Amino acid sequence: MKVAVKIRLKKSILDPQGKAVHHALQNLGFDGINDVRVGKLIELEVPDDGTPETIHNMVEEASRKLLANTVIEDFEIEYLGEKA
Amino acid sequence: MKVAVKIRLKKSILDPQGKAVHHALQNLGFDGINDVRVGKLIELEVPDDGTPETIHNMVEEASRKLLANTVIEDFEIEYLGEKA
Repeated sequence: MKVAVKIRLKKSILDPQGKAVHHALQNLGFDGINDVRVGKLIELEVPDDGTPETIHNMVEEASRKLLANTVIEDFEIEYLGEKA
Repeated sequence: MKVAVKIRLKKSILDPQGKAVHHALQNLGFDGINDVRVGKLIELEVPDDGTPETIHNMVEEASRKLLANTVIEDFEIEYLGEKA
């Protein structure tokens, strides 16, 4: 099963990478964009043998311990079903 | 309106960052994960005044020209509706 972890900077945290992308887009003529935030998309392939709870707990613990820096980032777990 | 652009390395492209995260997870005891791929999640805030087509065309052009490197990456556009 494929599980995606979306990692975003918390709203209160400045995003200089997003600001740089925003400026670059404006320089290319894309004026109709108000804001840009850059985050991470981490996709895990986990075995299907396991209850949804065990999988969720494992992915949440992995996100908290390693994937996201919870001081400055929020994460969201999304289940993408069968492997593509 | 919030629009997310999910950027992933193409399947045929090696992902050393994903491999490193995979190893780190294994070292932390997360053995039940088969594969990890790391991508980008770019969220754009665009004004609501515009047809869905003009917004889609703008975001697709921005993705192709700047956000994604289409030689090695695929992108997917997702509409998240109202701004949070």
